[in-house]
Amino acid sequence: MSTREAGRRDRLRAVAVHKDVDAVLVTNLLNVRYLTGFTGSNGVLLLRADGTDLFGTDGRYTTQAGLQVPDVEVLVDRATVTAVTREAVRRGAGRIAYESHDVTVDGLRTLESVVADEADGRFAPALLSIERAVEVLRAVKDDDEIEALRRACAVADQALAELAAEGALRPGRTELEVGRELDARMLTLGAEAPSFETIVATGANSAIPHHRPDATELRAGDFLKLDFGATVDGYHSDMTRTVVLGQPADWQREIYELVAASQAAGRAALAVGVDVVAVDAAAREVIAEAGHAEHFTHGLGHGVGLEIHEAPSIGPLGAGTLSAGMAVTVEPGVYLPGHGGVRIEDTLVVTDDAPELLTLTSKELLVL
Amino acid sequence: MSTREAGRRDRLRAVAVHKDVDAVLVTNLLNVRYLTGFTGSNGVLLLRADGTDLFGTDGRYTTQAGLQVPDVEVLVDRATVTAVTREAVRRGAGRIAYESHDVTVDGLRTLESVVADEADGRFAPALLSIERAVEVLRAVKDDDEIEALRRACAVADQALAELAAEGALRPGRTELEVGRELDARMLTLGAEAPSFETIVATGANSAIPHHRPDATELRAGDFLKLDFGATVDGYHSDMTRTVVLGQPADWQREIYELVAASQAAGRAALAVGVDVVAVDAAAREVIAEAGHAEHFTHGLGHGVGLEIHEAPSIGPLGAGTLSAGMAVTVEPGVYLPGHGGVRIEDTLVVTDDAPELLTLTSKELLVL
Repeated sequence: MSTREAGRRDRLRAVAVHKDVDAVLVTNLLNVRYLTGFTGSNGVLLLRADGTDLFGTDGRYTTQAGLQVPDVEVLVDRATVTAVTREAVRRGAGRIAYESHDVTVDGLRTLESVVADEADGRFAPALLSIERAVEVLRAVKDDDEIEALRRACAVADQALAELAAEGALRPGRTELEVGRELDARMLTLGAEAPSFETIVATGANSAIPHHRPDATELRAGDFLKLDFGATVDGYHSDMTRTVVLGQPADWQREIYELVAASQAAGRAALAVGVDVVAVDAAAREVIAEAGHAEHFTHGLGHGVGLEIHEAPSIGPLGAGTLSAGMAVTVEPGVYLPGHGGVRIEDTLVVTDDAPELLTLTSKELLVL
Repeated sequence: MSTREAGRRDRLRAVAVHKDVDAVLVTNLLNVRYLTGFTGSNGVLLLRADGTDLFGTDGRYTTQAGLQVPDVEVLVDRATVTAVTREAVRRGAGRIAYESHDVTVDGLRTLESVVADEADGRFAPALLSIERAVEVLRAVKDDDEIEALRRACAVADQALAELAAEGALRPGRTELEVGRELDARMLTLGAEAPSFETIVATGANSAIPHHRPDATELRAGDFLKLDFGATVDGYHSDMTRTVVLGQPADWQREIYELVAASQAAGRAALAVGVDVVAVDAAAREVIAEAGHAEHFTHGLGHGVGLEIHEAPSIGPLGAGTLSAGMAVTVEPGVYLPGHGGVRIEDTLVVTDDAPELLTLTSKELLVL
C-alpha cells in the first residue's frame, strides 16, 4: 500500500467533489507520478469521486504498474487515454474533468469522440477543465519529497566541491569541458540526470543570464558562473555560484557583495503567509538602492520539485503567499552587459520557522 | 545566412501555400529548432506564405536569437506566442494554421482570444490545423543531420567499447552502476545527454523489454542487455546490444542467433519505396517461423532524429513507405518471461543503395 500517494489522491478527490465532477482524467505524466508513484513514460490516472480509481498504461509497463501502483485498478491498453476515458463513461461519469493545460487540441478531439461514441445516443458526459489542481497540490512538499530534494542538492554540492578540489575550474579549460565534467560527476554521485542544461559562463558571458556553455576558455581574473542541479528520485535541485579565478577586482567584489546582500534579504523574507511579490521586492530593493535595478532582469525565484520550474513563481508578477513545505529558489543577479555578471542561487524550503537551506555550498566569494 | 534552415522553411511554405493558409504558427520547440536553428527553451516561428517570417522569443534569448536566427525578423516579448499571433493578425493573415498536436486546449483558447481581440470587430482570421507537416519533413534527413547522427552513434559505440575494455561489465556490479557509468562516459565523450533513460537489464530482467536499471547484480552466465544512445547537436542515437557474461548456454546462443537473423532480415529490407509494414514483416517472419512469434511483443523500429522516437514507425500498424534519407532503428527482440531476453538494435539511414549502418559495435554474440 502506498499510503503517501493515496493521501495525495484523496486531496485531489476533495477538489473534484468541490467542483462537482465525477471523474478527473490526469494526463500530465508528472502529475500521474505524483498521484500514483508510477515512473514509466505512459500512464494515465482516472480519479473518481467515489474512490474507485483506475490507472491506465500500455503493455510495456504491465509489471511495473503492478509494482508501483499496487492499490489502484490497472487497465492495460495500447490506446491508453481512449481506453480509460471509455471506461469512465461506462462507469457512469456525468462530468469528467481533464487537464486543459496538458491535453492538446487533438487530444481533446479524441476525448470528445470517445465520449460521444460510448454514450451512443444517451446523454453524453460533459468535459470540463480541472485546471492546475494537481500542480497546486504539488507546490507544498511532504517529508519524502523534501528528503529527495535534500539528496538532490547534496549531489550538486558534492560534485562542485570535488571539481574545485581537483583543480578542474582553472584557466585554460573551456565552459563546455567544465559543464560536461559537472554533469558526469553528478551522475557518478547518483543523480539520474542533470536538472537542466548546465550553465557555465565565464568572463563577459557571465553577463548573459542563461548563457549556453561554449568553447570560451576560463581566464584568470574572470568571473565564472555555474548554474546547475541534480535530479534524484525525480526531484530537482537548483544552485548558482559565481567565483573568481584569481584575485577579484574591486568592481567584481562590489557587485558580488551586492548580489549576496540581496540574496540574503530574499532568503530572510521567506516565511509562511508572505506574498511572493514581497519576497521578490525584499531582494530587488537592495539591488535597486545600489543603482542596479535595470541589471537584475528576471524574477527572484521559482518552486522546484518534480519540475525544475513549478509553482510558486516568485517575482514582480507572481501571485499568492508562501506556505510551509514550499520548496523554492532565491536567485538574484546583477548583469553588466559585455563586462560580467553575478548570480547567487539557493534552493530552500519554507517552514514555520526560518527556511531550511538545502544547497549548502559556501556563498563566500570563492577565489580559485 | 543559414541556408539550410531557410530551405526547410521553404519546404514548409510550399505546404502552407498548398493548404491555402497565410501563416503557420510553429510552436513545437523541436520543429522550431529544425526550421530556424534556435536551441533555446522558448521560441516560436510564424512562417508566412509571402516569405516574411517572424521569430518570437523572450528577453533571455535576445542575443542567442540574433546569432542563431540571423535571417528572420526577431520579436522579443515575454508573452511570446500571444505577441507573435497578434503580429500575424496585424499583418493581415486571413487563415492561420497552428500545430494542433502541440497546442494545448488552454493554448488554443489564448490564440482564439488574441485573434478576436486584435481583429476587434473586423473579420477575425480563421484558425486551423497544419497537422504534423513539420514532422513529415523531419522524417527525411539532410546531410548535416545524418552527420550529427553518425557522431551520436559513434559516441555510444565508443562509450560501450571503453567500458567493456575496462572490465566495467563484470559479475558483481549492479545494473544501476553500469547504466550510470555508460551515461557519464557518453557525456565525457561529447554527448549533450543520454538519448533516453539507459536500459541495463540482466538475467531475468533482460526479458522485460523496457526494464529500468535497479540494484540487480550482474552474474556469470546471464544475459546483459544494454539499450542506450547519445545526443549530439540535438540528434539521438539508439543501439541495443545483448552480451553474455561468461560462456553462453545453448538456449542463449539459440535465441541470440534467432534475433540476429531477424535483425539482419529487417536491415536487408530497408530500401526506398518499401512499405514499413513489409520491413517489420521481413524481420518478424524469421522469429515466427522459429515458433517465437508471441515473444516479440513490440514493433520493429522507429525513426530517430531530434526526437528519439519520430516518424516513420516501423511495425505491423505503421503506414507509408521508406524514402532515401530516413534514419530508423531495426530492433527485434525475443523475450522469454522469467528467463531472459535478447534484443539487437541498430540505427541506420535508408539510401538509394544499401542502408548505411551508423551503430558500428559488433553484433557477434559478445562473451565477456
